Amino acid sequence: METIAALATPPLSGALGVIRISGGRAFTLASSVFEARGGLPAALWKPRALVTGDVVIDGDLLDEGMAVRMVAPYSYTGEDTVELYLHGCIPVLRAVLEALYRAGALPAAPGEFTRRAFLHGKLSLSQAEAVADLVTAETRDAARNAAGQLNGTVGRAFSKAYDALADLLARFYAAVDYPEEEISPGEPVSVLQSVLEPLEALLATAGKGLLLREGLRCSILGKPNVGKSSLLNAFAGHERAIVSPVPGTTRDTLEETVTVGGVKLRITDGAGIRETYDAVEAAGVSRARDAAENAELLFAVLDGSAEMDEGDRAVLDLARDRACLVLINKVDLPQKLEREQLEAAFLHVLPVSAKTGQGLDAVDSTLRRLYEAGDTFYDGSVLTNIRQADAVRRTVDAVKTALAGLRGGITPDAVSAELERALAAVGELTGRHVREEVIDGIFAKFCVGK
Amino acid sequence: METIAALATPPLSGALGVIRISGGRAFTLASSVFEARGGLPAALWKPRALVTGDVVIDGDLLDEGMAVRMVAPYSYTGEDTVELYLHGCIPVLRAVLEALYRAGALPAAPGEFTRRAFLHGKLSLSQAEAVADLVTAETRDAARNAAGQLNGTVGRAFSKAYDALADLLARFYAAVDYPEEEISPGEPVSVLQSVLEPLEALLATAGKGLLLREGLRCSILGKPNVGKSSLLNAFAGHERAIVSPVPGTTRDTLEETVTVGGVKLRITDGAGIRETYDAVEAAGVSRARDAAENAELLFAVLDGSAEMDEGDRAVLDLARDRACLVLINKVDLPQKLEREQLEAAFLHVLPVSAKTGQGLDAVDSTLRRLYEAGDTFYDGSVLTNIRQADAVRRTVDAVKTALAGLRGGITPDAVSAELERALAAVGELTGRHVREEVIDGIFAKFCVGK
Repeated sequence: METIAALATPPLSGALGVIRISGGRAFTLASSVFEARGGLPAALWKPRALVTGDVVIDGDLLDEGMAVRMVAPYSYTGEDTVELYLHGCIPVLRAVLEALYRAGALPAAPGEFTRRAFLHGKLSLSQAEAVADLVTAETRDAARNAAGQLNGTVGRAFSKAYDALADLLARFYAAVDYPEEEISPGEPVSVLQSVLEPLEALLATAGKGLLLREGLRCSILGKPNVGKSSLLNAFAGHERAIVSPVPGTTRDTLEETVTVGGVKLRITDGAGIRETYDAVEAAGVSRARDAAENAELLFAVLDGSAEMDEGDRAVLDLARDRACLVLINKVDLPQKLEREQLEAAFLHVLPVSAKTGQGLDAVDSTLRRLYEAGDTFYDGSVLTNIRQADAVRRTVDAVKTALAGLRGGITPDAVSAELERALAAVGELTGRHVREEVIDGIFAKFCVGK
Repeated sequence: METIAALATPPLSGALGVIRISGGRAFTLASSVFEARGGLPAALWKPRALVTGDVVIDGDLLDEGMAVRMVAPYSYTGEDTVELYLHGCIPVLRAVLEALYRAGALPAAPGEFTRRAFLHGKLSLSQAEAVADLVTAETRDAARNAAGQLNGTVGRAFSKAYDALADLLARFYAAVDYPEEEISPGEPVSVLQSVLEPLEALLATAGKGLLLREGLRCSILGKPNVGKSSLLNAFAGHERAIVSPVPGTTRDTLEETVTVGGVKLRITDGAGIRETYDAVEAAGVSRARDAAENAELLFAVLDGSAEMDEGDRAVLDLARDRACLVLINKVDLPQKLEREQLEAAFLHVLPVSAKTGQGLDAVDSTLRRLYEAGDTFYDGSVLTNIRQADAVRRTVDAVKTALAGLRGGITPDAVSAELERALAAVGELTGRHVREEVIDGIFAKFCVGK
C-alpha cells in the first residue's frame, strides 16, 4: 500500500497542527521534511518517544516542533507511522504536505487512516464506524456511546453471534455429510435463542441511538416578537460557553442544530411559522402545521409580559396533546400572562428569559429528564448506526425463521439456508462478509486525516 | 504558579484534538481525566513517551487516545506538562476541560503557555514574539522569517548588543569611582560602532518585515464587469488548493486578504471604486482616488474582449506612474483590446483569465519577483515587529548620540546617561528590562492554548 499523509487537525491557524504519515515509506518521508535534533533519521528514533527538531524544506527552516514514530504493527493504522506536532501555521503545514506529496506520499482520502486500521485488523468495522461517530458527536452522550462502541461493546456482541452461528452451521453441514454426527434436537434451538436475545435487545436501542446521532426533530412555535430566535441563541450560547466559539455545527437554511440539556435538537427554522401567524395565510398555516406535526418535540413560546391573544391560542392549539414544552419568555419584565389554565393544560410550563438566561437551567434539566440524557444507558450498548441496525434486523429475522422451522419439526439441514442468511448478515457487522462498496460508503463519511 | 489547561487545536471537530496541561499539578490533574492502559498514574509514565489510554470522566468512558508527560524543565513551558492527544470531538474535549477546571486547573489565558516559557527562561522575549508571528503567518516567507527568529537569529543580535553595552557602561562607572582604571580613548567608540552596525542593518529590514507581517496595501481598479471579484476569488482559490478550505483568514468588511506569488495582499474592497465609475459622482471618484493613492500596489483590470472606453482610460489614469500590474482579463474570449499602447505605457501588462486560470502563474511570478517573495533574505534576520523596531530605533538613537558626544570630546562618564538609555531600550528586546504592561500586551495577542 502507498504511504499517505494528511493534516489531522482542523485547517485553521492555532497553537498546534498535526500531520500524519502512514505506510511503508513513512520514516523516509518524515526525514525529508523534519530534521531531528542530533541528526538521527526517523528510522532510528526510539519508537513512541517524542523527538524535537526542525521543519526544513528546500533548505529553509520553516518551523520547530516535535515528532514521534510508531513501528508497524504498533500504530493506529497498523503501519509504520510518523506524526509531526507543529505550530498551527497554515502556510507551513501546507508546505510540509506539498513536500511530502512531491517526495511520493499520497494525499489521504477521507477516513483512509481508519480504513487501513480496519484492513490491518486493528479495528473491527463497527469500531471503525464508532470512530466516525465519535469525531462528529455533538453531545456528550453521543460521544460516550461512540467511545463505548469503539471500546468494543457492540462489536463483541456481533462477534459472539457470528461465532455461534458459524459453529452451528458447520455442525449442520457435518451432519449432512456424516449422518453419524448426532446433533441433539434441543441444542440448535438453545444456540439460536442465545444468539437472538442480545441482538434483539440491541435492536430495541436503535430508536434511542438515532436520537443520539441524528437529534430530535423540533419546532419552535410562537407569534412574532415572543423571542423565538433569542431563545434559540440563548440555548446555543448556553451550551457553548466553554469551548467558544464552536463553529462547524451542521447548519443549513432549513435547520438549526443546538444542544439543550445534553440532547441534540434539530430545530426547523421558525420563519415559516412566523409568517403564518403574522399574515394569516391559509397556505402558510398549513405549512406551519406540517412542520409542527412532523416534529418530535415542540417548544411553544409565549410572551409573559403581555396578555394571551388569538395568536397565542392558535400556537397552543398546535401544541396540545403533543410532546411539548411551553416556554413563557420575558419573565424579566412585569408579568401579565395568566398561567393557571396553561399549567392545567400542559405538563411542562417553564418561565424563562432569553435575555437574562433565567430559567434556562430548568429547560435543560427537563429535557435531560425527558430524553434520559446522561443516562447510564449510553455506555456503548446503544445501536446508533442505520447500516448496523439494518443488518441486525436481517440477522434477527433469519434466526427467527430458522427457530420457527426447527420448532415446527423441519430437519436441521433444511434450515441451513436461513442460517447462512443470518451468518451473512452478522458478517456484515463484524466486517467478515462485507462488500467493498459498503466499506467505501462507510469511510467516505470520515474527515480527511482520520 | 497555578496549573493551566487549554485546547491547543482549533475548536472544531476533526481527526485530532490536543489538550495541554502545564504547572505543578499537571500530572495529578491529567490522571483525573486520563487512565493509562496498565493503570500507571501520569507521575510514573516514562517522560516524553506516548502512553495509550482512556478518557474517563465521572465514571463514563468518553474517548480513547494517547498522552505524553514532560517533566520540568524539559518541556515547552519549562514546567511539568501533559499533552492529551484525543479525537477531535468537541463535546468530549469540552468535558475533559470542564473536569480539569473542576479539579483545580485554571483556563489558560491567551499565550499563557508561551508566557510561562519566557518567564522560565526557555524563550527570549523576541523568540516568544516569533511564536505568535509563526502561528499567524499567512505566507511561507513570513513563517520562514518567524521560524528563523524563533531559532534565535534576531535574539542573538539583541543579546550581543546588550552584553557589549552593559560591559562598557560598567567600565565607565568603574572609571568614575576608580580613576586609576584607564579606558583608552578609542575603545568606547569602537565598541559602540560594533553595537551600532548590526542594529542599523536590522532596522533597515523593518520595512520589508512589515510587508511580510502586515501585507501590501493593494487596490483593484476597474469598470464594472471586467472581473475584479472573479480575479480576487481566482487568486484566493489558486493559493488555497492544497489545504482547502482554509477559513480563518483575517477578513473584515473593508479588506480582503489573499496571498499571490507568496506575497500577502490586503486588498481594499472594490465596491467603492466600482460605484465611482458607475455613477460618476464627484464624492465617489474622490474616495476611489484616495484608496488608490493610499495603496502600495494597484491592479488595473481591463476586459480584453471589449474595446477600450472612457471608463478604462479613467482607471489607467489612476494607475499611471504607480506600482501597478495591468491585468487584461477574459483572454479566454476573442480579443478586441489593443495592447500596444498599454505595453508602451505600463511595465507589467499581463493577459489573464479569472475563469480558466490562464495567466495567473505569470501574476504569481511577477509579484514574487517584485517583492522578493521566496528570497533568501527571509531567514529570520528581518525585523517584523513594530515594538522591536521601535526599541531598536531608540537604541540606535542613543548609541549615535553617545558616539557623537565621545567624538566631540565629552568625557566618558558624561555619556553614561545615553548609554543607560541605550541599555534600557535593548533590554526591552532581550526581555531583561521590559515592563509588565509590555509583556501583557505581547501575550494578549496570542491565541489560547499556545
